[in-house]
Amino acid sequence: MMIYNPKDWWKLIFYFHKADTFRKLLPAMLGVMAYTAVFSYLENDVFHFMPIKNPLAVHSLVGFVLSLLLVFRTNSSYDRWWEGRKIWGSFTNNSRNLALKLNAFLPENHESKEVFRVLIGNYLQAVKDHLRDNTNPKHLAFVNKFDESFYENHKHMPNRIGQAIYLEINQLAKNGLLNPEQLLILNTELTSFTDNLGACERIKNTPIPSSYNIFIKKMIFLYVFTMPIGFVLEFKYWAIPIVTLVFYAFAGIEMIAEEIEDPFGTDNNDLALDTIVKNVKGNLAEILRN
Amino acid sequence: MMIYNPKDWWKLIFYFHKADTFRKLLPAMLGVMAYTAVFSYLENDVFHFMPIKNPLAVHSLVGFVLSLLLVFRTNSSYDRWWEGRKIWGSFTNNSRNLALKLNAFLPENHESKEVFRVLIGNYLQAVKDHLRDNTNPKHLAFVNKFDESFYENHKHMPNRIGQAIYLEINQLAKNGLLNPEQLLILNTELTSFTDNLGACERIKNTPIPSSYNIFIKKMIFLYVFTMPIGFVLEFKYWAIPIVTLVFYAFAGIEMIAEEIEDPFGTDNNDLALDTIVKNVKGNLAEILRN
Amino acid sequence: MMIYNPKDWWKLIFYFHKADTFRKLLPAMLGVMAYTAVFSYLENDVFHFMPIKNPLAVHSLVGFVLSLLLVFRTNSSYDRWWEGRKIWGSFTNNSRNLALKLNAFLPENHESKEVFRVLIGNYLQAVKDHLRDNTNPKHLAFVNKFDESFYENHKHMPNRIGQAIYLEINQLAKNGLLNPEQLLILNTELTSFTDNLGACERIKNTPIPSSYNIFIKKMIFLYVFTMPIGFVLEFKYWAIPIVTLVFYAFAGIEMIAEEIEDPFGTDNNDLALDTIVKNVKGNLAEILRN
Amino acid sequence: MMIYNPKDWWKLIFYFHKADTFRKLLPAMLGVMAYTAVFSYLENDVFHFMPIKNPLAVHSLVGFVLSLLLVFRTNSSYDRWWEGRKIWGSFTNNSRNLALKLNAFLPENHESKEVFRVLIGNYLQAVKDHLRDNTNPKHLAFVNKFDESFYENHKHMPNRIGQAIYLEINQLAKNGLLNPEQLLILNTELTSFTDNLGACERIKNTPIPSSYNIFIKKMIFLYVFTMPIGFVLEFKYWAIPIVTLVFYAFAGIEMIAEEIEDPFGTDNNDLALDTIVKNVKGNLAEILRN
Amino acid sequence: MMIYNPKDWWKLIFYFHKADTFRKLLPAMLGVMAYTAVFSYLENDVFHFMPIKNPLAVHSLVGFVLSLLLVFRTNSSYDRWWEGRKIWGSFTNNSRNLALKLNAFLPENHESKEVFRVLIGNYLQAVKDHLRDNTNPKHLAFVNKFDESFYENHKHMPNRIGQAIYLEINQLAKNGLLNPEQLLILNTELTSFTDNLGACERIKNTPIPSSYNIFIKKMIFLYVFTMPIGFVLEFKYWAIPIVTLVFYAFAGIEMIAEEIEDPFGTDNNDLALDTIVKNVKGNLAEILRN
Repeated sequence: MMIYNPKDWWKLIFYFHKADTFRKLLPAMLGVMAYTAVFSYLENDVFHFMPIKNPLAVHSLVGFVLSLLLVFRTNSSYDRWWEGRKIWGSFTNNSRNLALKLNAFLPENHESKEVFRVLIGNYLQAVKDHLRDNTNPKHLAFVNKFDESFYENHKHMPNRIGQAIYLEINQLAKNGLLNPEQLLILNTELTSFTDNLGACERIKNTPIPSSYNIFIKKMIFLYVFTMPIGFVLEFKYWAIPIVTLVFYAFAGIEMIAEEIEDPFGTDNNDLALDTIVKNVKGNLAEILRN
Repeated sequence: MMIYNPKDWWKLIFYFHKADTFRKLLPAMLGVMAYTAVFSYLENDVFHFMPIKNPLAVHSLVGFVLSLLLVFRTNSSYDRWWEGRKIWGSFTNNSRNLALKLNAFLPENHESKEVFRVLIGNYLQAVKDHLRDNTNPKHLAFVNKFDESFYENHKHMPNRIGQAIYLEINQLAKNGLLNPEQLLILNTELTSFTDNLGACERIKNTPIPSSYNIFIKKMIFLYVFTMPIGFVLEFKYWAIPIVTLVFYAFAGIEMIAEEIEDPFGTDNNDLALDTIVKNVKGNLAEILRN
Repeated sequence: MMIYNPKDWWKLIFYFHKADTFRKLLPAMLGVMAYTAVFSYLENDVFHFMPIKNPLAVHSLVGFVLSLLLVFRTNSSYDRWWEGRKIWGSFTNNSRNLALKLNAFLPENHESKEVFRVLIGNYLQAVKDHLRDNTNPKHLAFVNKFDESFYENHKHMPNRIGQAIYLEINQLAKNGLLNPEQLLILNTELTSFTDNLGACERIKNTPIPSSYNIFIKKMIFLYVFTMPIGFVLEFKYWAIPIVTLVFYAFAGIEMIAEEIEDPFGTDNNDLALDTIVKNVKGNLAEILRN
Repeated sequence: MMIYNPKDWWKLIFYFHKADTFRKLLPAMLGVMAYTAVFSYLENDVFHFMPIKNPLAVHSLVGFVLSLLLVFRTNSSYDRWWEGRKIWGSFTNNSRNLALKLNAFLPENHESKEVFRVLIGNYLQAVKDHLRDNTNPKHLAFVNKFDESFYENHKHMPNRIGQAIYLEINQLAKNGLLNPEQLLILNTELTSFTDNLGACERIKNTPIPSSYNIFIKKMIFLYVFTMPIGFVLEFKYWAIPIVTLVFYAFAGIEMIAEEIEDPFGTDNNDLALDTIVKNVKGNLAEILRN
Repeated sequence: MMIYNPKDWWKLIFYFHKADTFRKLLPAMLGVMAYTAVFSYLENDVFHFMPIKNPLAVHSLVGFVLSLLLVFRTNSSYDRWWEGRKIWGSFTNNSRNLALKLNAFLPENHESKEVFRVLIGNYLQAVKDHLRDNTNPKHLAFVNKFDESFYENHKHMPNRIGQAIYLEINQLAKNGLLNPEQLLILNTELTSFTDNLGACERIKNTPIPSSYNIFIKKMIFLYVFTMPIGFVLEFKYWAIPIVTLVFYAFAGIEMIAEEIEDPFGTDNNDLALDTIVKNVKGNLAEILRN
């Protein structure tokens, strides 16, 4: 995720970072420009074949429904992005709460504190790697019996670590270090880890229905490529920048929606998962230090 | 559900898969085209009977409220689709959590682990079949006393399996293998299975109120079939592609909304229930293996 | 609720069932038609008193804000309708869950199973009757001590049945047939019955704020009855169908919103409460049969 | 809250109750009318100073963004109103549930039933008074030790009654009349009282950010007071009713939003708190009667 | 947060407080004015170089999609602001509930009441300071062993205080002053403190995706700086106030969205955290006074 000051207008307006929508769309915009230029030349200086009276009316009409569809697209993409952020906020909260509770419940300096510090950190690390198709046991920390061999031959690392956490908690309960009501109190946080993991997988694996995606792209294409027909009549060579600008407006919205639809990657607009995981590990160390 | 790369513009724009909205609408579009052509010929070359000054004004005005209605329709259909996805995400999470908890609570290698692995998998299988009106005890796996005869003479398979899960849990509690707080900890997941089932049935059995559906279809019909009246005056034979395009825009949105309104079928845009059920069964096997 | 196939365009377009918006609005539409006709005749053939240059501009401008208000109205009505459906889905889920749990907790063939089968079914029956102002103890089933006299002299049947359920549960707990953790496990479902009842009452008794309702109706009235002023100038006698169509569009949306605002009645668009109650009773019989 | 039949069009259209938006706006509308009349006279009959070609274009453009802002305002106000209604629905549900549970848990004819009947009723009464800045211990009922002196010297009545309820419950638990699981079962309702109180205070004390309020009012002002500039050119003296109508449309939406933003007062659109409190007290008496 | 009467139209319309959007935008508006003036002079009196027929059409078309984007921006900013308010409402509720419960559970005059009064107050104080990057142990109150040294060497004050609360609760449980079910009853409130803290951090640290922010600012810039091209042709020198007004409308919406996006600061529109914290401390003192 890019860190930026949302109030610095000039910098943002003249910002052309390599991840900027403007730069990404530039090749397509040049194509639209060339296409409109050729069309303008043919119509204005060669054929004069279209004696339409009100050439902008249709694009006004359809532009309206297309704009509404793009805002629908924007809303649903942003909701996914923001839900992703909420899930990772929940990971943070539950990690902290679990640590605070275990710290209070377990005897001072009990070795299990260290085990949970490592396992909870591992869980978040593994979820992040899992969402980026980058699972690697080497990214994990090892502690006591949960060493490298524990993770061997398992594909779904987060589930494996979840298993470890449950087993460790259950062992403490059997040893009488956690009493029944403490077990109940820990249950919410334990459950939420798997719930959050599942929610991330849902967002990652389920893009917007393909019909919408295809329909919107087809509409933008039809819209922009028929624009010169009417606009060249009305604006002559001025149609070239105009069509390009309108293309930038419509395709830009669609492109940003695509970018934030899956918020767990490493793009400029994606969530700062590295920072979040690092912060949680820091919090865990501060809370569970002996 | 179709797997696709949402960022591949060219492929999606020129994609005419048999499930594509464009192809599905093609016959109707040809009809609209023919109708407009006949109308154009009669008006332009035969009668000249309509001396209206501003023929597009009414369609602009009504087009606005129709567009807003279609976006309302899109939103409500998409919400149903996404809620359906969330429910199946919840099935996934709760299956995993239940497995993780039972794995920690039950003694190693206890035969009940196998029973729950089968029953939870059966539950999801049965819900999927139930939603597709495809209930068949042959799709289920059998284990111990929960064999073929257990499912005989029952119509509502998911409820029957729910019964089995509750009875098995209760038996373990009676035998002292689950203590009171563990029973409480398992309760959330057990309850959620029935809740999710009910939510799926709700989405499946309750389409959008018929008044809206009928009203929107009537409006599209009235709108498109009066369009040539004004547009032929303004654009002459160009009205033929224009009316067809506008029909594609409006009818396409309504058609996609229809498709995703019931997300549990086997259409192109429907949820990938087969994959989800398969993945959960895999997770269960990995977590509950002895 | 009408059962219909949402994908059958032709049937729905030419559907003029007695509950259809078109038919309901027909008298008003004929009125609007006559009014516009008189207005057209006076303006076009008698007075010619309005030399306005751009007669549609104001209706375009105001039409926009009116359309947005109508979509707001549509959204809020639909949300109420869908929330009503969710509440009854929750009634279904909680009835099933309660039955599944009681079936597992109580000894086989215990007579209380029958009591709960009857009481839960009665609860849903009574809520449905209560929402339709049709309360009648004769609609209820009687079992053991919960016979006709139990319901006598009570106005609020659902609360009375809730009382019965709580007393019966408490009695079982006192007799040692339900242990503490089982009581806790049953609590969620028991609580939710009253919550769902309250939510239904809230939807039924609280229409949209009267100011909005009055404002929207006044705006539609002002809008449609000033339309001929401008439209007759522009379209002459064609204004008659045009004004009628626009009236149909705006008044139709408002009328459907009114219909679904209170979803618990017996109108065509109302929820299928009869079916839901019948299904739940069937499920209860299947789950709690001895 | 006004009781009305939302389907009675004629009555609502010609309804000019003293709380009606139309009547409230009438003085301002007369002002706008006079202002436009003066402007029309000066422009049409005296100066003729503005040779603008397309005088309505700017108001179309800005009218669009203003309409969207007003719908945003409408949505957020309505959400607050509806949330307020949900909170009072929750008060109703929790009062009933608490009564049902206590009725089942406590021995028949135990005097505490009467204490809770009074205290719960008092709580709702006190919250209503608190929200209307009308706190008065005289509105409360007294029972046993919770007599007038108990409320003396306390400003925040609902918190004081909450304290009484918690103390009474705790006393019953200490006396062995409520066992641990019953205490847990009562906890949700007890907690929700304070939560609902806090939610009401939040809605009451936090209007929409002042920037939006000021910005929207400024935009309406600028919009309406520049309208005559363009509209007088286009419509001559017809501009007088037109500008007034547009002012009614925009200012009316803003005014209704203001009215329902704080839904706990005694305005026509405010929630029927008196009725709700009365109904709950009736329910409590019916459930907890000995 | 500014305290204001939302119904006082005149005062708000002519309100030009230093934090008002109008005043903040004034320099930019003067710039736009000057730019348009130069442009008008060059076009009208010097060059006459643009013979475009329909110069406003493009700005109408693009103005539509830009307006929708701005409303999307407004909605998402307002949602963040309102969520922030809800979180602090939850802080208030949970503080009160925790106090009410502890007051009922602990023996009268037990010294721990004072400890919790201080610690809960400290928690809210520390969260407020933390969100304003203004952490300072001097702002906290000290009690018993939780004195200045307890907070030394800790960066994340809220987590440190959370630790203290959990340890104190746990100590009471060990000493038999809180029994198991009371521990369970306190758990919800304890957990919610960390959850609310995390939610505040999420809102503070995660602005809207940079792509949207940059895209909207670029669109406003392109839109306003190309406006004179068309508007000068149509309105001559009248274009100067018109372009400035449109700029005020669009940039004003974006600017307010920026202001309320992070609602925890000390701006005019930010939440009244100082008042909330003060009120809660007052409530705590009233509830937990011995």
